[in-house]
Amino acid sequence: MQLFFSDNISSIEGRLTEDESRHCLSVLRKKTGDTIQVIDGKGFIYDCLISQDKKICAFIVQQVHEIKPLRTSRIHLAIAPTKNADRIEWLLEKAIEAGLDEISFVHCVHSEKPRVNSERLKKIAVSAIKQSGQPYLPVINELRSFKEFIAAQQSASQKLIAHCNSEYLRTPLNNVLSGYSKDTSVTILIGPEGDFSDKEIMLANESKFQGISLGNSRLRTETAGLYSVMLANGILLP
Amino acid sequence: MQLFFSDNISSIEGRLTEDESRHCLSVLRKKTGDTIQVIDGKGFIYDCLISQDKKICAFIVQQVHEIKPLRTSRIHLAIAPTKNADRIEWLLEKAIEAGLDEISFVHCVHSEKPRVNSERLKKIAVSAIKQSGQPYLPVINELRSFKEFIAAQQSASQKLIAHCNSEYLRTPLNNVLSGYSKDTSVTILIGPEGDFSDKEIMLANESKFQGISLGNSRLRTETAGLYSVMLANGILLP
Repeated sequence: MQLFFSDNISSIEGRLTEDESRHCLSVLRKKTGDTIQVIDGKGFIYDCLISQDKKICAFIVQQVHEIKPLRTSRIHLAIAPTKNADRIEWLLEKAIEAGLDEISFVHCVHSEKPRVNSERLKKIAVSAIKQSGQPYLPVINELRSFKEFIAAQQSASQKLIAHCNSEYLRTPLNNVLSGYSKDTSVTILIGPEGDFSDKEIMLANESKFQGISLGNSRLRTETAGLYSVMLANGILLP
Repeated sequence: MQLFFSDNISSIEGRLTEDESRHCLSVLRKKTGDTIQVIDGKGFIYDCLISQDKKICAFIVQQVHEIKPLRTSRIHLAIAPTKNADRIEWLLEKAIEAGLDEISFVHCVHSEKPRVNSERLKKIAVSAIKQSGQPYLPVINELRSFKEFIAAQQSASQKLIAHCNSEYLRTPLNNVLSGYSKDTSVTILIGPEGDFSDKEIMLANESKFQGISLGNSRLRTETAGLYSVMLANGILLP
């Protein structure tokens, strides 16, 4: 089942983006009158009839199906970007397959790379939900400083910070997650290769982030991110 | 801390492989009299003094440290190789970071690619344990037919098969793992993109493989493999 993505769709009609139109019309050679399935990244799949096949693909909606999320909880990953952008792109793709709901990028004292290409990440996210059949497009937040990020999480329910500094209390992620009810939403903060600074850990702890350990000695940033999402998704699935 | 790998080492002396020697002598320009740290992939780290720096790096062992495994359980992943070899290579690297102990390759009815380059995979495994500081080199088994693989698992304790066929009983992996004691060794069998055949599922069930689901609708083979290893490692960590 080939899915297309549209962020310009109602229960009556809609149109694909330029990229998606090119794929649909030029690559797959769909024509006016052909049927396609479109997702909106908000939990709906639309059965559509193509009504325009010149440059932009427009369509009439014939039926709408609502796809219920697998979890009632939400998983929010916050991570320091890696030096090589492709490692974060890889992480995003795999984390979406594993059920990621939201991702934030955090600039830390030991961060290697202070830039994130959100446009490119959004494209990767769209392609990942199409490929994996996930009906929800995760929220992708712009890069923020560590301080700004922490301040913005005041109202978040369960907040975790993964670090390697044994001077601060850390509980294994598995134990923390197993203690939650299945509808608990969780924010997990993963640091750069050089770990968080003492100051950052203290600031997070003051803001009710609980210290966690990921068990294995030396995980790359992106592996730590994916590990957290996979574990949270696996344990919080009803 | 730069680690080197040797499969030719005693408590007195040893030598690096040709690849490792080149890296040590030509790239890092280590000389006779320099100290290096060597791992044997069997749980030991050796402090060594280089005694020969021509072509092959030989050394005298000065001290041996034993690294205890993080888990008492063992995680064995069995998987159908993917069409693109690089997806299995990626899986192996990440699964090792996440604590994989053994990997097998299984040729299924719907397998896309019946070959595996074990030599190349072994190199990737060595580089992954060096990078992640894992002291154990996982066992990498040659490709076998589904039947042969199943027959060889007779004595294995907990055996799981992940498939998407709702006609057969499946329990979410998380629930299965949470019911185990922390020292349970587990074998998890992941099928090709086209899933296992009915016959394969029945054969596995007859051989005491329990059916499991991975919760998410459509995971790529290599994501399913990594997801299983990460979940098993996370839940079975003491």
